[in-house]
Amino acid sequence: MPRVALGLAYDGAPWQGWQTQPGGLTVQDTLESALDQFLAHPAPTICAGRTDTGVHALEQVVHVDTAAQRQPESWVRGLNALLPSSVAVQWASVVDDDFHARFSALSRTYVYLVRHARVRSPMTHGRVGWVYRPLSLEPMQRAAACLLGEHDFSAFRSSQCQAASPVRTLYMLDIEQQGEYFVFVFRANAFLHHMVRNLMGALLYVGQGRQEPVWVETLLQRRDRRLSAPTFSPAGLYLAGVEYPARFGLPRAGLNELLATHMLPGIRLER
Amino acid sequence: MPRVALGLAYDGAPWQGWQTQPGGLTVQDTLESALDQFLAHPAPTICAGRTDTGVHALEQVVHVDTAAQRQPESWVRGLNALLPSSVAVQWASVVDDDFHARFSALSRTYVYLVRHARVRSPMTHGRVGWVYRPLSLEPMQRAAACLLGEHDFSAFRSSQCQAASPVRTLYMLDIEQQGEYFVFVFRANAFLHHMVRNLMGALLYVGQGRQEPVWVETLLQRRDRRLSAPTFSPAGLYLAGVEYPARFGLPRAGLNELLATHMLPGIRLER
Repeated sequence: MPRVALGLAYDGAPWQGWQTQPGGLTVQDTLESALDQFLAHPAPTICAGRTDTGVHALEQVVHVDTAAQRQPESWVRGLNALLPSSVAVQWASVVDDDFHARFSALSRTYVYLVRHARVRSPMTHGRVGWVYRPLSLEPMQRAAACLLGEHDFSAFRSSQCQAASPVRTLYMLDIEQQGEYFVFVFRANAFLHHMVRNLMGALLYVGQGRQEPVWVETLLQRRDRRLSAPTFSPAGLYLAGVEYPARFGLPRAGLNELLATHMLPGIRLER
Repeated sequence: MPRVALGLAYDGAPWQGWQTQPGGLTVQDTLESALDQFLAHPAPTICAGRTDTGVHALEQVVHVDTAAQRQPESWVRGLNALLPSSVAVQWASVVDDDFHARFSALSRTYVYLVRHARVRSPMTHGRVGWVYRPLSLEPMQRAAACLLGEHDFSAFRSSQCQAASPVRTLYMLDIEQQGEYFVFVFRANAFLHHMVRNLMGALLYVGQGRQEPVWVETLLQRRDRRLSAPTFSPAGLYLAGVEYPARFGLPRAGLNELLATHMLPGIRLER
């Protein structure tokens, strides 16, 4: 049966995460309900990264099998007419049978946005993590450097994590400051449960001067979740892309393109 | 009794506009309920611009009278602890008795954000107007030019408008394009009911090529609301500042500063 890959964006705030649950208030339930109507048959989906409650996606990738024939444009328009305003298919692509949204993925990219300010902003609520204390960029960058590469990330793994191994390879952990905002970009072959939010908790401790950068390396070595900082809020966390081998021919939006599409292009007026 | 001015930001999506209503689901009801608790007495408020259902504010200005003594920082923190996440006081300032949030205002500035794209974005839903058809900047700018100055704006006035006169002075109507986004900045001494949304409807007709720029001038001269385009969505509309005489000593955030604070700073990554 032909396989179709979908690129999906969603505002995670109203949803209890990706994965289907009895209450039905998840992104997967909503998507599968729309697919059921659109294809006129039940269509189970597999996704690249199961996001938590409140976590957003600029680009989640999902696959579904169906004998129904639809044009790519029809997939996008038809499903979006059936989906709520907080979820939208961005593209659709017929793929080879051996494509698998989860197992074919080479890596996942997450972005975390944090704003340091004395006063909270209602417009960024639920979309940007907020820290009251000032943050220093350079100590966080030094802490980030020691996390790169293949490590046992037990120190940053939720007690509910069901992964067989705590070993992951972190390919990128870039941190940039833009005024009051800090942008964290994480890319790894895969992530453990709560791994990004736990790493954020530790990095923000370093940025606020509560710990030295070397503390993060110690945490990594000790492999004990209890020694680390609290799990940081899901508010500013975005699944911002999934990388696949080029042979599958999926659309490849760059990270800056995804940010410009969904996060406003940094409106600055000339006068 | 001393008078205090407050700068207020809010996400308009969950609210039935500014002005108090029996159901209590308005920004004014919410603010006055927080003030009641904070000051321990009922505190009626007057605002600079009564925003409609779904319209946001980067800077609404409100005044309130109270004998209670509080530090400016305490006003901000105390009220924000009592306000929901969609509303936040940004500053407080003790002002002279003759300050009046509405009558002292020299002008109001509104910003409208529109995105042209084939596919909707869940992250900008309720915050940015969305147009499916391509928009041309230059015809809209030409139409905007003929709206500047003092005019009878009856053609762009809601049938429910209660203003005594339909004459207003438009000081600024700038339109800028940033990729898929269009930013409209309106500044006038005051606005009629639905005036910005009605002007947006007409400008977008011109931008989409449905009408020539000169049509907007004809509408203005005919003074007949029924000849114009439909009222455009409230989703992308922001009260983005209120200008007062300098002698009142209110904080003066520039428009770019307000946009950078609340609308993300245009996150672009270096790599």
